Amino acid sequence: MPANAFYAQSGGVTAVINASAAGVIETARRHPAKIGKVFAGRDGIIGALNEDLIDTSRESASAIRALIRTPGGAFGSCRYKLKGIDEHRAQYTRLVDVFRAHDIRYFFYNGGNDSADTCLKMAQVSSAMGYPLSCVQVPKTIDNDLAGTDNCPGFGSVAKYVATSMREAAFDVASMASNSTRVFVFEVMGRHAGWITAAIGMADDEDHPIPLVLLFPEVPFDEARFIARVDHLVKTRGYCCIGVSEGLRDAGGKFLSESGLRDSFGNAQLGGAGELIARRVSDRLGHKHHFALADYLQRAARHIASKTDVEQAYAVGRAAVQAALRGASGVMISIERISDRPYRWKLGEVPLARVANREHMLPRGFISRDGFGITARARTYLQPLIRGEAGLKFSNGLPAYVRLKNISIKKKLAPFEA
Amino acid sequence: MPANAFYAQSGGVTAVINASAAGVIETARRHPAKIGKVFAGRDGIIGALNEDLIDTSRESASAIRALIRTPGGAFGSCRYKLKGIDEHRAQYTRLVDVFRAHDIRYFFYNGGNDSADTCLKMAQVSSAMGYPLSCVQVPKTIDNDLAGTDNCPGFGSVAKYVATSMREAAFDVASMASNSTRVFVFEVMGRHAGWITAAIGMADDEDHPIPLVLLFPEVPFDEARFIARVDHLVKTRGYCCIGVSEGLRDAGGKFLSESGLRDSFGNAQLGGAGELIARRVSDRLGHKHHFALADYLQRAARHIASKTDVEQAYAVGRAAVQAALRGASGVMISIERISDRPYRWKLGEVPLARVANREHMLPRGFISRDGFGITARARTYLQPLIRGEAGLKFSNGLPAYVRLKNISIKKKLAPFEA
Repeated sequence: MPANAFYAQSGGVTAVINASAAGVIETARRHPAKIGKVFAGRDGIIGALNEDLIDTSRESASAIRALIRTPGGAFGSCRYKLKGIDEHRAQYTRLVDVFRAHDIRYFFYNGGNDSADTCLKMAQVSSAMGYPLSCVQVPKTIDNDLAGTDNCPGFGSVAKYVATSMREAAFDVASMASNSTRVFVFEVMGRHAGWITAAIGMADDEDHPIPLVLLFPEVPFDEARFIARVDHLVKTRGYCCIGVSEGLRDAGGKFLSESGLRDSFGNAQLGGAGELIARRVSDRLGHKHHFALADYLQRAARHIASKTDVEQAYAVGRAAVQAALRGASGVMISIERISDRPYRWKLGEVPLARVANREHMLPRGFISRDGFGITARARTYLQPLIRGEAGLKFSNGLPAYVRLKNISIKKKLAPFEA
Repeated sequence: MPANAFYAQSGGVTAVINASAAGVIETARRHPAKIGKVFAGRDGIIGALNEDLIDTSRESASAIRALIRTPGGAFGSCRYKLKGIDEHRAQYTRLVDVFRAHDIRYFFYNGGNDSADTCLKMAQVSSAMGYPLSCVQVPKTIDNDLAGTDNCPGFGSVAKYVATSMREAAFDVASMASNSTRVFVFEVMGRHAGWITAAIGMADDEDHPIPLVLLFPEVPFDEARFIARVDHLVKTRGYCCIGVSEGLRDAGGKFLSESGLRDSFGNAQLGGAGELIARRVSDRLGHKHHFALADYLQRAARHIASKTDVEQAYAVGRAAVQAALRGASGVMISIERISDRPYRWKLGEVPLARVANREHMLPRGFISRDGFGITARARTYLQPLIRGEAGLKFSNGLPAYVRLKNISIKKKLAPFEA
């Protein structure tokens, strides 16, 4: 008799997390003898706690296929970390109760560091309770900071978007620099690790030379050195483009966005790191500046997603189901790099204990010695991740994305009092 | 004997202004009996004043072709408006001197409202001086506010970008809204006319319903009504997406970005209109918000340019040369809409006197009665302008753009003392 599967999306969504969902659901549908239905948690794990389970079998094959080209989280996500088992065991037993009530024996959790922790605990609790549950994490994070995998689905597309955007903006600024805007500042995500900031560096290459300065969260902000560098670039190249991590910190380790900068009158200025940097450059060097903040646009930009990323996102979803069918549990599907040129990769499995609550930081060897750019090693790593364009469907001039019906199944249990 | 041509890019650049340059240069090259070389002004009209003329004949046919897919202004642009003829006649006579020195008889000026004024004055001055100069404006502005034309090259691609971006962000916010971000604010350009703000409205359609509020520069900001609208949408739809013009004004006609808003303690808050609106919503309704500011990204986003826009940008460049060869002067090439469905258009010529110093504002009938959305008429107008995807070349995962050699010809005159 087949058992059912549970799939949930967790944390910040990406341009390709739905491709992973498609990988899970399409693969499950190919194994009807072992997997009955795939139920998706409405708004992530909260849906499981609330017994709000979306019946994905109500969605057509073409709708599930269209998930591959649709950004956002089709079933809803949440920023909700389960407490420790000892702190709040009732949450975990509730989940097992819900799974038991709906004959769910497969648990696919699509997320990052926190999700790995949750997925691991689910494996431990269900095992301790004698309830057979295969718990497999499907990796996802634009931050690219998951341990145990060469890269994370979601990151490659953000990388492609930020590099494309900076390259395009650089062409614009170069046109205006003789007598108008000379400095362009672009703030990107990645509060703790500078992977996305590093990806901006790809905008600049031999055929598209750009006077570029990157401000990484790993490199304490040194205003004097920074201003000198911008000044030099404007004087020698006519303009300067600056990529800033939202997580830029001062020498004391405080986020610039929290501590602010002082203006010429000594008043603290508020704003995000990019905005502060932009104002500061104008204040110190007198150049007209422009400032862009991509925010959600960068992680939702399916229209310029990386083909590598979309393929890997789908593949990790598929592999999670295959692993569960082989009896694996307590693991995350990982991406292993076989070679850089040509880029070859394969999937693996890594124990969740080696993933949960760890962070895969940007190696120091990826940041140039002066702290303002990326090295050849970084380029070699990043290059294949942004490669290829992933098929879109356009309708009336805009990308056509799918909205699922998202029909919940009937509840069987009493509400959960958290 | 053929005479030479002068081409210059003026004002803020766009994703497709170089397609117009290609249209001018390629067409000129096809008429060697009448047009010798095309000289481009380095950094716009300033290049003519300084006799800094780029010899486009030094660029290969493939480089000129690649301009069609390259954003920014390939020869540099400037924000420089010539003074009135009576105020500073020397500037105009200098231009005629430079043109005479290099046997330039064709003047192609690629720009917006201010450029029309300059182009018109050039036609008048050269005529008064008895110097034969065909002056034809090639229209360009992302603001879509040029009089005498149905639409302006540059706008359609921005429209496609902002609508795509808002649609994608809406899919993201919808995923997060149950327990995290509920309000997303996106600030766009268009300080005086709400064309770009209106284009955000295209993100929402039957297949992609989005709880959307637009804040137009034409509609004085009414905070109470706005907050009530957002509150209603979040309560009924779970989240709300807000498109804000940088030129949003208060009831007194003052830019929000200049007058600011007061926080709960009565302190004036600084920032752009979008940022102020975002903070205000959080302040009043308590929702977590995200805020994006596309800035230059929107007007440089060649990677998601509209095919209609690219084709028209090229066509107006080509038509400008053809018009000049027919002896036209003191005109702008215009785009005339023949029908909406199917979209059919043709080019025309409009006297610069009917273009210069006028603005084509967003019709009131394009804004919904409540002031927060667009009407069916607006959709009918906007739809064809964002249609089609325009060919790109990718290299190493990123759009490949061309940088010209931009070699100046030898000067013949003494420097100009302005």
